[in-house]
Amino acid sequence: MKRLKIIKIGGNVIDDAIAMENFLSDFSKIKCAKILVHGGGKLATDIAKRLGVSQALLNGRRITDVETLKITTMVYAGLINKQIVASLQSKCINAIGLSGADGNSIKTKKREVVDIDFGFVGDVSADSVNANFIFSLLEVGISPVFSAITHDGNGQLLNTNADTIASALAIQLSKLYDVELMYCFEKKGVLKNAEDDSSVIHEITKTGYKQLLQEGIVSKGMIPKLDTAFSAIQNGVQSVVILHATDLLNKIYKNETIGTTLVA
Amino acid sequence: MKRLKIIKIGGNVIDDAIAMENFLSDFSKIKCAKILVHGGGKLATDIAKRLGVSQALLNGRRITDVETLKITTMVYAGLINKQIVASLQSKCINAIGLSGADGNSIKTKKREVVDIDFGFVGDVSADSVNANFIFSLLEVGISPVFSAITHDGNGQLLNTNADTIASALAIQLSKLYDVELMYCFEKKGVLKNAEDDSSVIHEITKTGYKQLLQEGIVSKGMIPKLDTAFSAIQNGVQSVVILHATDLLNKIYKNETIGTTLVA
Repeated sequence: MKRLKIIKIGGNVIDDAIAMENFLSDFSKIKCAKILVHGGGKLATDIAKRLGVSQALLNGRRITDVETLKITTMVYAGLINKQIVASLQSKCINAIGLSGADGNSIKTKKREVVDIDFGFVGDVSADSVNANFIFSLLEVGISPVFSAITHDGNGQLLNTNADTIASALAIQLSKLYDVELMYCFEKKGVLKNAEDDSSVIHEITKTGYKQLLQEGIVSKGMIPKLDTAFSAIQNGVQSVVILHATDLLNKIYKNETIGTTLVA
Repeated sequence: MKRLKIIKIGGNVIDDAIAMENFLSDFSKIKCAKILVHGGGKLATDIAKRLGVSQALLNGRRITDVETLKITTMVYAGLINKQIVASLQSKCINAIGLSGADGNSIKTKKREVVDIDFGFVGDVSADSVNANFIFSLLEVGISPVFSAITHDGNGQLLNTNADTIASALAIQLSKLYDVELMYCFEKKGVLKNAEDDSSVIHEITKTGYKQLLQEGIVSKGMIPKLDTAFSAIQNGVQSVVILHATDLLNKIYKNETIGTTLVA
């Protein structure tokens, strides 16, 4: 099978214009088929503040009310997505920006209210990803750029976690490609000691992950990321790596010991 | 050749949620290949006000500074575009929202400063439209939905007139399809008397247009719309009609005397 790289780029990099430009320049140098999934960064929060829309957070997760959904759709699917696509086009990458509604590429289900009403948040399921449509773009040399906005098929846009989107895309497309999933962010990988950038754990097995959780080494923000990452590696994705955005090309073309590699 | 309908929907309809939903329902019933081009409406102006970004207008045309470009990109290419696409998906239309940067579908040139600096405004030219890419979407049953945001190919997004985009798409795609271009808005066509909704001019020839201009019957806002409309009819587009949004299906499937038809 052909190779496909699915790269997730995190919010802290998006917030830094120069870091983002460097990252997109590196992304554009990847030679095989590729998909970019981007988070939102602080811009949506800033704009919400300026518009006087208050934001509720619960355990670090945004509660998406109607007004917040409008803002995230504007910022993620509009401004950030189109700026990324225009930048990639200038680097000779034929990118296309997509929300899940576009080409019905990712259909999700509004999260059911159990204890908490998360609002307009969409959860992916096994059949969320329209792999055939995405395949048809990749096969003519187009690189999809996904924002974290999806739809429910009934006209409702939904806010969705970008790490989860990257993992769902990787799982579904692993039937058509050898998929490498790479989570790029502002750290060198999963750290043993959050204060020490050199304490990268180079490999985590499923058993090792349980131990890291018990020892409290893997903390709040990293848990959902690692859960989706393990879900990918256990469902057909060939490799999953968590690494610093600036290490992308070195990881792909030079050095195997960069970042944190997950092992099933 | 196969038939293609390119429908432009104007700002006043977009501002009215119920009118817009009805329009999209009608649009979804068009049986042949179709493209939707949408303007922006008042939402961008409202959001600019709430964000404290002042907007300069000159002869009814927006001056697009950096902050205004960000807002129009958010509102047009983000919120409005994705809401339209999600709504069409719920009506079984496989829509895809596009800015000109997406798939390099429309590349424009920043308007040169002569007397006035319009800012980040892009003008279309003969080779602006990537007809092959749009053709490849239409041929697999996908309906592109264009916002009025384009790019220059060098990483810069540009604000572009939606009427002009519709006309440019119609002209380029008329090499591949029999194209009917329909400008839908909140009036029943070009009116002889702006105060009298029943005074629709049913047909305007190029000579007749000059006369209407001289007599002042065609006024400010309508001049650029009619200029782009005549440009289409003189460059290969089979028919151009200006009509009320609610008359769309009647015009296509029932009655030939609705709206204003342009004649070369």
